[in-house]
Amino acid sequence: MEMKIYQHKVQYYETDMMGIVHHSNYIRWFEEARTDFLEQAGYSYKRFEDEGIISPVLEVNAKYKSMVRYGDTVNIEVHMTAFSGLKFTIEYLITDSVSGIICVQGSSQHCLLDKESKPIRLKKINPELYDLLVSLVEQCDS
Amino acid sequence: MEMKIYQHKVQYYETDMMGIVHHSNYIRWFEEARTDFLEQAGYSYKRFEDEGIISPVLEVNAKYKSMVRYGDTVNIEVHMTAFSGLKFTIEYLITDSVSGIICVQGSSQHCLLDKESKPIRLKKINPELYDLLVSLVEQCDS
Amino acid sequence: MEMKIYQHKVQYYETDMMGIVHHSNYIRWFEEARTDFLEQAGYSYKRFEDEGIISPVLEVNAKYKSMVRYGDTVNIEVHMTAFSGLKFTIEYLITDSVSGIICVQGSSQHCLLDKESKPIRLKKINPELYDLLVSLVEQCDS
Amino acid sequence: MEMKIYQHKVQYYETDMMGIVHHSNYIRWFEEARTDFLEQAGYSYKRFEDEGIISPVLEVNAKYKSMVRYGDTVNIEVHMTAFSGLKFTIEYLITDSVSGIICVQGSSQHCLLDKESKPIRLKKINPELYDLLVSLVEQCDS
Repeated sequence: MEMKIYQHKVQYYETDMMGIVHHSNYIRWFEEARTDFLEQAGYSYKRFEDEGIISPVLEVNAKYKSMVRYGDTVNIEVHMTAFSGLKFTIEYLITDSVSGIICVQGSSQHCLLDKESKPIRLKKINPELYDLLVSLVEQCDS
Repeated sequence: MEMKIYQHKVQYYETDMMGIVHHSNYIRWFEEARTDFLEQAGYSYKRFEDEGIISPVLEVNAKYKSMVRYGDTVNIEVHMTAFSGLKFTIEYLITDSVSGIICVQGSSQHCLLDKESKPIRLKKINPELYDLLVSLVEQCDS
Repeated sequence: MEMKIYQHKVQYYETDMMGIVHHSNYIRWFEEARTDFLEQAGYSYKRFEDEGIISPVLEVNAKYKSMVRYGDTVNIEVHMTAFSGLKFTIEYLITDSVSGIICVQGSSQHCLLDKESKPIRLKKINPELYDLLVSLVEQCDS
Repeated sequence: MEMKIYQHKVQYYETDMMGIVHHSNYIRWFEEARTDFLEQAGYSYKRFEDEGIISPVLEVNAKYKSMVRYGDTVNIEVHMTAFSGLKFTIEYLITDSVSGIICVQGSSQHCLLDKESKPIRLKKINPELYDLLVSLVEQCDS
């Protein structure tokens, strides 16, 4: 599956008094890119929730390599690097859309729960989504 | 009922590259002060929702009089100025906690809905809350 | 000048526990659409600031007509309705990109200051930008 | 030095449609607690910036252990666990203020720069702050 790289244009409200993007916003951009990735893969996160599956964040990490400023646009590459049936891991690479300089590297780990916050066996409950997540990891490995 | 004035200390993440608090954040501070006001009045907004009542915002207005910066603490005065049984209006006055200078004046208007987003007759469904809202407006008029 | 209507896709982090977009975010979307509008007009807000001009918000108003949810995309129409040489007013119309239903109507008023927060006479200091703002209002009237 | 534990009361605008606090907000709460910690230690972050020192975030990590909801108040413990003269590391423990249950564990790493974004030798430029940061780490070790 050929994925189009997600782009985000910096908004004024995302800057802070240091004159750069506030570091908390990259965590939100990870989410933007992650949901775009799932949508491109054919299974929007909205569909997750419509079908009673939520995927709360278990862990998030970000390494800030160079500052991003108002007026910049960034590319956000997304890779699903692991899926155990219960949890999945996504990695992000944010680069400047013009210079290609690395701005932020990060990852997030998620579990799969039902609406009562109980873990689900995706393979049983939703084999289509299970197979998709497996194939996304394989694609990343290849 | 004697109300304690709500205070908010400016956070770094609330500033923008102009070096001041981003104007969208005052709308959030209105909400902070409004929920504190209801809590002090004895009926927390959490209790609204626990009892199946939501109060979406119909309208919001803000006039920015002087800039607020990181390091500042503001006082937020709240007055319930109108309640029709279906809608209520709240006014806000944000002043610098040290100088007393007016920073922002604003208002918000809210309706009362059930979980299916249908208007409710508060007087019938929840006379306790109805009487409270009436008394809060009277208190403001006096 | 033909302007392309700005679109915003709702992000998960913009929702609240009511299941809808938190009302404060529309104020941020106004800013997104306003900066896109100025950029399309040939004078990006970044250029304002690079040339020492800031345009703080004096006033903002929003009327919430129908709820916007995760999964929705909205169109945001922008019109510059007034410019006095010292201040300008912008109006916004947010509609659902699919149904066309009106979601939010709003406006913001801005002044023009130099980096020391002093009002500037734009006509003298930057006649190009002055003429542009005048033409944007005329275009809106026609 | 006896430090008072920082408290944060969950705001409605911090929730998302999952009915819990959006995970990006904990990164902001880390900042709130960190600046409170420095202020209690006698050197506010505002004073850092007033004296020409900025401390951008190099890295941030968060592990989400249990969900936090509207109506909750959390305690945020802060420990400065490392300081090399050039960089420092802070760890955070967020617990429910009533039950004591662990909600989030995290850390952030920061460097020290001047206004031109160049690394500074704190020991030379500001020995008072240098000694303070050293003592905060020692206090944490003891």
